[in-house]
Amino acid sequence: MKRIVIIGSGNLAEALARAVAVSDLEAVQVFARNPERGPVVARLAGCGWTSDPERLDPTADLYLIAVSDRAVASVASTLPIPAQAAVAHTAGSVPLEAIPERFERRAVFYPMQTFTKGRTVDFTRIPIFLETSSAAWRPELEALARKLSRKVIWTDSAQRAKVHLAAVFACNFANCMYAIGEEVVRSAGLDFEVLKPLIAETAAKACDARSPRDVQTGPAVRNDAPTMERHLGLLDNAPNLQEIYQQISKEIWKTSRKQ
Amino acid sequence: MKRIVIIGSGNLAEALARAVAVSDLEAVQVFARNPERGPVVARLAGCGWTSDPERLDPTADLYLIAVSDRAVASVASTLPIPAQAAVAHTAGSVPLEAIPERFERRAVFYPMQTFTKGRTVDFTRIPIFLETSSAAWRPELEALARKLSRKVIWTDSAQRAKVHLAAVFACNFANCMYAIGEEVVRSAGLDFEVLKPLIAETAAKACDARSPRDVQTGPAVRNDAPTMERHLGLLDNAPNLQEIYQQISKEIWKTSRKQ
Repeated sequence: MKRIVIIGSGNLAEALARAVAVSDLEAVQVFARNPERGPVVARLAGCGWTSDPERLDPTADLYLIAVSDRAVASVASTLPIPAQAAVAHTAGSVPLEAIPERFERRAVFYPMQTFTKGRTVDFTRIPIFLETSSAAWRPELEALARKLSRKVIWTDSAQRAKVHLAAVFACNFANCMYAIGEEVVRSAGLDFEVLKPLIAETAAKACDARSPRDVQTGPAVRNDAPTMERHLGLLDNAPNLQEIYQQISKEIWKTSRKQ
Repeated sequence: MKRIVIIGSGNLAEALARAVAVSDLEAVQVFARNPERGPVVARLAGCGWTSDPERLDPTADLYLIAVSDRAVASVASTLPIPAQAAVAHTAGSVPLEAIPERFERRAVFYPMQTFTKGRTVDFTRIPIFLETSSAAWRPELEALARKLSRKVIWTDSAQRAKVHLAAVFACNFANCMYAIGEEVVRSAGLDFEVLKPLIAETAAKACDARSPRDVQTGPAVRNDAPTMERHLGLLDNAPNLQEIYQQISKEIWKTSRKQ
């Protein structure tokens, strides 16, 4: 089981193309509507591209759907391939059932990472969360996933939904904190550049820790009320940021006291 | 101007000791009450330690107060050193005026980074925010700071207060997002380890970007209401996290629309 069709041409499809190209797996085709991105992803994967359902290669070992979460179900339901085909989607927040039951081998293949066009990540370190309704297929699917990553984890849809939620906090919301930080330094006439060493070290420190709670610093964990009051004063013209400041400070203090 | 007394023995004092030891500056003494930490920091700085105010070396070029924000004023006001001494504190959120006026040369010397015991950071990349009431002293103070870091920035107390607030978001609050992420993956029977590649890449990506807003991903920036609803459902037993989820999602969506 090694011949793969990548469906989609977004950030994740591109990352998969790069990862497959340097693995023991073989990309046989990229199937994507976008006439600009499709060929780019195909080139990275080292295979051909088509946007024509009639030209979709029906002989692949696995059809890997890497489209936006909302498009998974409609793409999966219109795939012009035989029921014996193995089909997986890559969306963290989408249940296995988004793939039609007519396929004998359905799977979720969720690589938890934030993907960006033009940016290469080390796929071998990315946890891949697997789920399938076909017990007999598990060993083969796991072997395939292990050709892309050293970290393969079986989860059901309920667990994976939580993993996806955790990723929203650790990635999307952390990035929003950087963005608010940028907004605040700009209001002092400085630019985002000054925050970069701090952002890099904060992430590195948490990743070296047993738990991020062990390395929590700042006024909230010390319950330094005067500093927090001054900070809220600085946010007087941004009530939404005041709200966020207070909620997160409360959370930090509450969880720190439990230790 | 190169002979420095480091006052304090916490995380920042330790980082300063390490940085001074590998610079052209000379640590002449560590002055700290803590009989365990004081000698440790002194050893890193390559100098002696005292906790006895009567033994504090009165001949140093600069007394660098690296104690907790709340202790700065009381430590500064009780320093048994002559008024000709140059005194600086290192606290981002504390105004210059926390150092008594009797000192002719008062300064703030705020290295913006998150410091941890036992952890070496590259001090030369850390922005140091300087402020002094003595215009004549500026060139000398800046030259000293440049022996520790390539990034030296003059700010007044109002600007620095904003820089400190930005650091709370980009560091303390980002770390809290990691911690909430950990809590959520634990509730799925997984451990913090699975989030580490995502955390590292999120920070790296933001640092490579012009602005973190340019690389914002996730359901909020797509206004993917069904996914956000499912996420809120998963947080049913944690109303505080629901609140944080909603506030930050609102902020992400609001700022993304402005682009």
